[in-house]
Amino acid sequence: MEDTGLGIHKNIKLSKQPPRLKSRKEQISEEVAKLLELKASLPDEGQKKFVLKTPKGTRDFNPYQMSIREGAFTKIIAAFKRHGAETIDTPVFELKETLTGKYGEDSKLIYDLADQGGELLSLRYDLTVPFARYLAMNKINNIKRYHIAKVYRRDNPAMTRGRYREFYQCDFDIAGQFDPMIPDAECVKIVAEILESLELGDYVVKVNDRKILDGMFAACGVPEDKFRSICSAVDKLDKTFWSDVRAEMIDEKGLDPVAADKIGKYVELKGGLDLVDKLLQDENLMKESSAKQGLEDMKLLLKYCELFGVLDKVSFDLSLARGLDYYTGVIYEAVLLGFSHTPGSESEETIGVGSVAGGGRYDKLVGMFDPKNKVVPCVGVSIGIERIFSILEARAMASEKKGRTTSTEVYVISAQKNMLEHRLQLCKELWDSDIKTEQSYKKNPKMLDQFQACENNGIPLAVIIGDSEIKNNVVKLRIIETRAEREVPRSEMIEEIRKELANL
Amino acid sequence: MEDTGLGIHKNIKLSKQPPRLKSRKEQISEEVAKLLELKASLPDEGQKKFVLKTPKGTRDFNPYQMSIREGAFTKIIAAFKRHGAETIDTPVFELKETLTGKYGEDSKLIYDLADQGGELLSLRYDLTVPFARYLAMNKINNIKRYHIAKVYRRDNPAMTRGRYREFYQCDFDIAGQFDPMIPDAECVKIVAEILESLELGDYVVKVNDRKILDGMFAACGVPEDKFRSICSAVDKLDKTFWSDVRAEMIDEKGLDPVAADKIGKYVELKGGLDLVDKLLQDENLMKESSAKQGLEDMKLLLKYCELFGVLDKVSFDLSLARGLDYYTGVIYEAVLLGFSHTPGSESEETIGVGSVAGGGRYDKLVGMFDPKNKVVPCVGVSIGIERIFSILEARAMASEKKGRTTSTEVYVISAQKNMLEHRLQLCKELWDSDIKTEQSYKKNPKMLDQFQACENNGIPLAVIIGDSEIKNNVVKLRIIETRAEREVPRSEMIEEIRKELANL
Repeated sequence: MEDTGLGIHKNIKLSKQPPRLKSRKEQISEEVAKLLELKASLPDEGQKKFVLKTPKGTRDFNPYQMSIREGAFTKIIAAFKRHGAETIDTPVFELKETLTGKYGEDSKLIYDLADQGGELLSLRYDLTVPFARYLAMNKINNIKRYHIAKVYRRDNPAMTRGRYREFYQCDFDIAGQFDPMIPDAECVKIVAEILESLELGDYVVKVNDRKILDGMFAACGVPEDKFRSICSAVDKLDKTFWSDVRAEMIDEKGLDPVAADKIGKYVELKGGLDLVDKLLQDENLMKESSAKQGLEDMKLLLKYCELFGVLDKVSFDLSLARGLDYYTGVIYEAVLLGFSHTPGSESEETIGVGSVAGGGRYDKLVGMFDPKNKVVPCVGVSIGIERIFSILEARAMASEKKGRTTSTEVYVISAQKNMLEHRLQLCKELWDSDIKTEQSYKKNPKMLDQFQACENNGIPLAVIIGDSEIKNNVVKLRIIETRAEREVPRSEMIEEIRKELANL
Repeated sequence: MEDTGLGIHKNIKLSKQPPRLKSRKEQISEEVAKLLELKASLPDEGQKKFVLKTPKGTRDFNPYQMSIREGAFTKIIAAFKRHGAETIDTPVFELKETLTGKYGEDSKLIYDLADQGGELLSLRYDLTVPFARYLAMNKINNIKRYHIAKVYRRDNPAMTRGRYREFYQCDFDIAGQFDPMIPDAECVKIVAEILESLELGDYVVKVNDRKILDGMFAACGVPEDKFRSICSAVDKLDKTFWSDVRAEMIDEKGLDPVAADKIGKYVELKGGLDLVDKLLQDENLMKESSAKQGLEDMKLLLKYCELFGVLDKVSFDLSLARGLDYYTGVIYEAVLLGFSHTPGSESEETIGVGSVAGGGRYDKLVGMFDPKNKVVPCVGVSIGIERIFSILEARAMASEKKGRTTSTEVYVISAQKNMLEHRLQLCKELWDSDIKTEQSYKKNPKMLDQFQACENNGIPLAVIIGDSEIKNNVVKLRIIETRAEREVPRSEMIEEIRKELANL
């Protein structure tokens, strides 16, 4: 018996099936593959070997995508500014040691720069650790800042689901020693404002608290040195079944199955103030001061969310864990309900995005950078703009009306040959009057091509110049949409154009 | 005879000297070094070894610097849009081979990423090569685009002069097969518009043409295979004396001293149309078709610059060479006259910035990426925003009035204790009405601290809530500058605030 067939994929997915004979179709495919390989190995004739692509997991943005992306950024920045945030910027790379020991199991995904002499550097993995480094370095105790920039993760990207190796994060964080849950609740409010302004449909902001999780782990009999690794197993519950998470806890992380099953009961729970109150009655949990503190905080958070009018969007969810090591209190994750992911589902690619924002409280991160371990408590959220962007882009693709990628107001047109010098002068005059202007870069462009340029690019007005206009010291002003034309004196051109633009 | 003194350095530099006895000073130094090493190997007591800094040649931007930077970007983007440009984005890293062979001698400054398995990657060195790769990959023949993003060079930074290893470029490029010098002149016009809008004082846009340089090299007897290396020697003329450049040509690059001296005569020349006409009479130069073509183009460029009203800012300068390999035609460099650099001057640090924009025509770069060598001619300029930024920042530091870093309009103030819930509700109402609002994150903040927050951050209005306001269903509205206060009905609060904001 010969093992054949779809090869590797089959072996992985259906390894229990018996091997089978090759079909005719498969034999042909194999022969074709051999020929293609042979062809590829032949010396090319004048052709370059060069692979023309962007690095794996990255992409370019074309002008149309940029206009969609900028529209989303504008709304997000407006929300951050509405809440009084300043902005900062940090370098795209940090000293390697700045990032060391901050991300737990995810550290393997950090991009390092080659050692070309000098310092050892890594690309930033998020904006939170650089922010903490910035606060410690500048001895800042107190700031509310946003930061929109690219971060880098050597992940296996599922690009159709909006996951990349290079992607933007839009972070909002509040640093400072304040009274409990006031800044924490504002983060929920900001996420709600942003998701609503982007019109992404219904969503839920899941909340939990690392203190509750730690108390729960202790109450279930997890040894303290396993808290973080068990937490990162729980974090996978949004992508996979409990049975797999349980297996990871027991087989990989050596947890007692009894403890795992106790955890399994807790992580099914989700709700609101009612659930908080119920857990405050849980005797096992109440033995853990961490759980008690976390639940009191949660109660306050939900109350403040109610005052902010966003309680109906919030779900206290014990299965929410978040992957990163540095969280110490409240954690958040916003999920679009139209795009939720079913664990184990076959059609991952079509389901698309789920989580579109996440964050939490990290009270000890700044202290890790401070020589005297000075604590600056912080809380913040990060908007997952790439996933949002893939929704907005798909929506724009589906819509009839294509947006403009330029904002040109006037196109200067030659009515006949040898008008270039006149066009250049007109352009100068328009630019100097701050009117967005283009013209053909040909010396003697065709009339039709020039009108076409206006139509194609949605340019609303044209200024037309020809011999008769020069003789009469006028220009022709044309409204592209209506094709209405009228002559205006050259000296009144700017004023007339401003009037027309105001009317549009 | 005892050799003493400078120790190690001396041994390295003068290794032919006989071995010698240790001086007393050296013995002490050695003992100290041993003790320091011993100390370093001891377990540290709570203190971290960690160096808290950004990588060499990089920096953070604080909110105040960001507000200055954003102000400059706004003006630059306005100019690009005024000329009808779209924008694109590309990844921060490219396949290493994408950057290979594009930068000549500067290639050594490229940052490589560590080989962590997978593709070999490098950080982008400029935005021009990624743009060319983008055009070839997407088969675009024709685009006018701007791109504002960070680029990376392992240079020895002179940060006080606005030179960094990570820095922004603001690029504007026109790609397409057009009639000569029309897009080329528009690049000069854009640079002029930007420098004027940023109010950086007087400036000159130096122009030259690689075809003129090549013709000049040929006419002076430079062998063709030395054109690029001799060109990159000429490029150093803005930083160093002719005598040094001449030595480099002869000693390092093996040029005949007679040829070097002929070049020396040409590179002294600068002027306008008069110089073009004079060179068109130069018999040696006119034997070189490349020079003739370049000078005809230059004539046209200067004529178009005149029509654009910028000829008085343009200087045709035969010493302008530009470092990069990929230029094929016109080259530009804009220099601020208040900040020009004197070669050999001792006070480099105080002289600060000189060149603030540069660029040129690169007709063959896209073809290098196209499997069929299809040509897409391109011309563009890059604004040196970091240097401009250091001028703007120095100016802002010197000025009396410090700009705001937030745009908060209203601060919600507790008039007495236990007002937090009322404040949260007021904030919600204000945010939901798109009014930029902040409050204290303390449960019971002091009245004075709250007023202070308004003063410190330039917040123009305060809404004050206390028991009597709650009883009367009003809030107190305070104009921070005048300290005028009045009560407004709670239901009219938003409307009244909008009126006040419109008045400010």
